[in-house]
Amino acid sequence: MTSVDFMDTIDLSQEMARAAAVVEQALDVLLPPVEGAEGRLIAAMRYAVLGGGKRLRAFLVMETAGLFGVNETCAARVAASVEMLHAYSLVHDDLPAMDNDDLRRGKPSTHRAFDEATAILAGDALQCRAFEILGEPDTHSDPQARCDLVLALGAAAGARGMAGGQMIDMATEGQALDGPAVTRLQALKTGRLIQYSAEAGAILGRATAQQRHLLAAYGRDLGAAFQIADDVLDVEGDATEIGKTAGKDAASGKATMVSVLGLELARSHADMLSRQAAGHLAGFGGQAENLRALAAFVVVRRH
Amino acid sequence: MTSVDFMDTIDLSQEMARAAAVVEQALDVLLPPVEGAEGRLIAAMRYAVLGGGKRLRAFLVMETAGLFGVNETCAARVAASVEMLHAYSLVHDDLPAMDNDDLRRGKPSTHRAFDEATAILAGDALQCRAFEILGEPDTHSDPQARCDLVLALGAAAGARGMAGGQMIDMATEGQALDGPAVTRLQALKTGRLIQYSAEAGAILGRATAQQRHLLAAYGRDLGAAFQIADDVLDVEGDATEIGKTAGKDAASGKATMVSVLGLELARSHADMLSRQAAGHLAGFGGQAENLRALAAFVVVRRH
Repeated sequence: MTSVDFMDTIDLSQEMARAAAVVEQALDVLLPPVEGAEGRLIAAMRYAVLGGGKRLRAFLVMETAGLFGVNETCAARVAASVEMLHAYSLVHDDLPAMDNDDLRRGKPSTHRAFDEATAILAGDALQCRAFEILGEPDTHSDPQARCDLVLALGAAAGARGMAGGQMIDMATEGQALDGPAVTRLQALKTGRLIQYSAEAGAILGRATAQQRHLLAAYGRDLGAAFQIADDVLDVEGDATEIGKTAGKDAASGKATMVSVLGLELARSHADMLSRQAAGHLAGFGGQAENLRALAAFVVVRRH
Repeated sequence: MTSVDFMDTIDLSQEMARAAAVVEQALDVLLPPVEGAEGRLIAAMRYAVLGGGKRLRAFLVMETAGLFGVNETCAARVAASVEMLHAYSLVHDDLPAMDNDDLRRGKPSTHRAFDEATAILAGDALQCRAFEILGEPDTHSDPQARCDLVLALGAAAGARGMAGGQMIDMATEGQALDGPAVTRLQALKTGRLIQYSAEAGAILGRATAQQRHLLAAYGRDLGAAFQIADDVLDVEGDATEIGKTAGKDAASGKATMVSVLGLELARSHADMLSRQAAGHLAGFGGQAENLRALAAFVVVRRH
């Protein structure tokens, strides 16, 4: 509790819980009901995305949209979309051919709860639905804004984004990467989608190019801080608290900022990025209070 | 050669080859270059989608777009997008956890040429790029048309479309399905994306609702005829000629219209659907000649 006081953390937790509840309901509505011969697929999609996670990406969409007075129902749709995209990436990353993780968010990963084929297809259908939602008229009255969301998500999730990052992560396992290589790996694997989440509110709110740029920079630094803090937690954390197997990165020989910088320097690098993230919000005044608290929170969280 | 004469088939082959060449070039431009630490992923994406296949879906987009005088460059982008989507589904379907196929289009399937993790990610990134292309301004000047394409592809590829169909196919393996169940399975698994391909030209061309409806009906019947003809080929065909392992459906206990109706009835059912498909084109006159020839071709082809 160094860079954020206790009351701020409590307030932020309540705000995040409130946003998570709104997004949970949106997810329930936006996912198809479990019906028909394909019901098993839909059950797996729902299992993978409902009822779990911090909803960090959803919170970013809701909060940045709030800066521009965007209708909450529209923001919740985009928030639900990015959580579907994120959930698909977790389902596929957990597969035996990838990270081979049996636990996710403290419960069996999707391929363990169902089976591999169902998990692959559930991830596929979640990605598809994430893009489809962005194209739907209820997401924004202006089709140009909807196309901008599709483009931004496409860039964040594709070969030069999240999927590319996961490829690098797999391909470099057991190799000693230097700082710039780890930074780029993490920017692609998790950073780009977090950046997208912060930009999405600006797109929904038809913000100026400058405002969108600042929120993108906030998301980029926040994402980097978040990932390094995650690597620190992986070394320090307790499996029960973080809901996945602790120490797994080191055991599998994955390069992280902790392996590059050591624990102490990694922690102070995350702090620096966190302050830098908050700095981009200077022009947004009191409305950005939750986003500032979030930047502080990601580097002090325990899980 | 019962319902189409020899010269028609020659002409159609030339037309399809011409469209395939245009789309091949569009794919090469629209896929990222093999660069960076993520290069292996991009190499796998390119391996999966370039240089193979009949390009049936691409041809449908190009031909239906041609009915409305759509710019060929725009049509080729949408054609490339649907071929990426189709290629992703083949890459994932071939995985060991799914159909476990070592051969695709006469060469090693993507997970055999690379590895499972790379194949999963390549499929993921291909789907992502397919949607992203539809959102890009170069695809259509009107963002409403671009959103309509995103919505139509989303509906065709998702849980109530292609992914749902593959789920049913996996879940019902070894079960005796009745005619309606097989029809729905095939409509979802392959029919919806073929229907989308025929509709895409109407969306690009800002066609009337009636015109779009007719082309969708053409695509639906064509897709059904195509799939049944494929099942017939699987029983009759020779592995070298069709480029995959023949008799695999029967060996794996997959229900097809051949297993439901028998070979002769399945063949005549496909013929009926082929004529029905052509019937929807009555109002489009001489411009729809290639689409009519295609309907005839899918039921007489040898591979």
